[in-house]
Amino acid sequence: MITLPRYRRMLLLTEGRLGVFSSKTAASLLRYRLDDVVGVLDSTCAGQSLSRFLPAAPRRPIFARFDEARAAVAPDALIVGVAPVGGAMPAEMRRPVLEALRGGVDVVSGMHELLCDDAECVAAARAGGATIHDVRRAPPEQPIAAGRARGTRARRVLTVGTDCNVGKMAASLELTRTAAARGMDAAFVATGQTGIMIEGWGAAVDHVVCDFAAGVVESLVLHVAQRQIVFVEGQGSVLHPAYSGVSLSLLHGSCPDAMILVHHAGRSHYRFDESIALPDLRTLIELHESMARPLHPCRVVGVALNTVGLSDGEARRACEEVSRDVGLPSTDVVRFGADVLLDACVGQFRM
Amino acid sequence: MITLPRYRRMLLLTEGRLGVFSSKTAASLLRYRLDDVVGVLDSTCAGQSLSRFLPAAPRRPIFARFDEARAAVAPDALIVGVAPVGGAMPAEMRRPVLEALRGGVDVVSGMHELLCDDAECVAAARAGGATIHDVRRAPPEQPIAAGRARGTRARRVLTVGTDCNVGKMAASLELTRTAAARGMDAAFVATGQTGIMIEGWGAAVDHVVCDFAAGVVESLVLHVAQRQIVFVEGQGSVLHPAYSGVSLSLLHGSCPDAMILVHHAGRSHYRFDESIALPDLRTLIELHESMARPLHPCRVVGVALNTVGLSDGEARRACEEVSRDVGLPSTDVVRFGADVLLDACVGQFRM
Repeated sequence: MITLPRYRRMLLLTEGRLGVFSSKTAASLLRYRLDDVVGVLDSTCAGQSLSRFLPAAPRRPIFARFDEARAAVAPDALIVGVAPVGGAMPAEMRRPVLEALRGGVDVVSGMHELLCDDAECVAAARAGGATIHDVRRAPPEQPIAAGRARGTRARRVLTVGTDCNVGKMAASLELTRTAAARGMDAAFVATGQTGIMIEGWGAAVDHVVCDFAAGVVESLVLHVAQRQIVFVEGQGSVLHPAYSGVSLSLLHGSCPDAMILVHHAGRSHYRFDESIALPDLRTLIELHESMARPLHPCRVVGVALNTVGLSDGEARRACEEVSRDVGLPSTDVVRFGADVLLDACVGQFRM
Repeated sequence: MITLPRYRRMLLLTEGRLGVFSSKTAASLLRYRLDDVVGVLDSTCAGQSLSRFLPAAPRRPIFARFDEARAAVAPDALIVGVAPVGGAMPAEMRRPVLEALRGGVDVVSGMHELLCDDAECVAAARAGGATIHDVRRAPPEQPIAAGRARGTRARRVLTVGTDCNVGKMAASLELTRTAAARGMDAAFVATGQTGIMIEGWGAAVDHVVCDFAAGVVESLVLHVAQRQIVFVEGQGSVLHPAYSGVSLSLLHGSCPDAMILVHHAGRSHYRFDESIALPDLRTLIELHESMARPLHPCRVVGVALNTVGLSDGEARRACEEVSRDVGLPSTDVVRFGADVLLDACVGQFRM
């Protein structure tokens, strides 16, 4: 697995891409590691209020240049706050990354293109005495999955999505926090670059060679086998043409005891191609249960609905509608808390 | 994609693993590239008849040492004829591989562990002026799939399996040959190491980083977009815990117009773990059709039944039974030919 030092003064690099989707990583760190974030680095919107770009964002300064940020907030790490499709570093990010490394500040990146393979970055890190953390690099262990996750003491809950970017990580994180708040011994299993940056350990399953993807998931779950309940972060969607292999590897690698379906309210078509309709939720629930059955039978026990952009009233009605439609509890975990979904999991396990 | 020179005098290295399953690659080359195979290298069974280890094997000598084989049959390539789980080179194969390379004979390997990354092999190849071909290495192009295969002129047929090692490659190859024999402009799309060795081009999808697996499949299919009909080699099974991600990437990357389900007659449990029952064929057919539907609706049009070990009469009865059970044509393509399955595809396309 990949591990990170516990940084306490993170500076988030978004250079020209600050936004809910365009800088998903930065937005998530601002939500789940806020106490450890000291600012944002983005010359295209320096000095402006963060909430102009991220709804309900907390107050953190936006800096134009690395030197300026360094003088003002003394970061202990520069975090590349974006993960573009294809995973190459945007050209305009190279300069601040090199400045940080030369200046002795660690850089954490979740891009497919590894900074460790970039000679200029490696030289800069050496010159500055800084460390590069490519959290998306393949973990050193490369096991073949064999359903071993079925044997954990921990109950396993996997989030599965109707599409990419619907809120699977947020649902898993909120469930973990809610369980912990109830005194349960709960763990979050990070399976993507942002999750790893938040939690400090995990593996980016989408960057693992396909034959070992489920095996890596299995090894992550076995790492927390002795906990009481573990929430495995889902990725992509089992019907997404590009990422379905990642999603199914997660299902068969983690052998969940319960699944939470995650959906973006009102999304009827795939984000990558609006000519392709999403299957309805009931079809997706049935499909996931069919795919789980031979190895380890498992039910979808609730729906986490992402209602961003709706009013509270609209959001409640959307959740009720989904709940009636599929016959399962549904809520927006960010807005209303994860209790009803955790109850559904616990009820399933008779904990 | 990965391409190979057209070798005409292949020597197959099986060192201690000669057998239907244990040297699947060698067995397949003996079936589909027989004219280009000059012998087998295996000190543990040298001088014996090949048919003692591979039923119905053709006559080819088994040699104990590379030098001996070289003097007798002058190979133009040494082919590593095994692909063990996990993909590391068995220690006992190192010596003949190094001898071949030092002697100026190319080595073709389909293991996950690349010979190109092995300093001793690289040095031997340089000394001998030989080339190493790691057919399982990731192809240079790494696209993200987006359902582009739907737009090919070629009709696309994918083999899907109930388990690993059931005969998906053989089914696709036999269908391709049968189509060609009918005068159709047919292509075989190799997606695994053995398929690439047989056909001379393709990509080992299981060795691609998960996020790009479907994209690589898509690019292979687009390479033969202008043919009349293409048969995409399936891999693994969508319900196999270790390899399901590879199988689903194939489905969503190739967007088939028809699928052929491949099954090993009488196999009721997974080979890797006999405590896990295979789902029945009807369930699997439904599941594959559900997984294809949102992107490109597609039917399973027939069942290729691997009846190895049965008598002709038993094999016929097994095919009839499957056919009655699922309501689709079924045959053993190796034993009885692929005509009825090709008819089912052509009927589906109204070609």
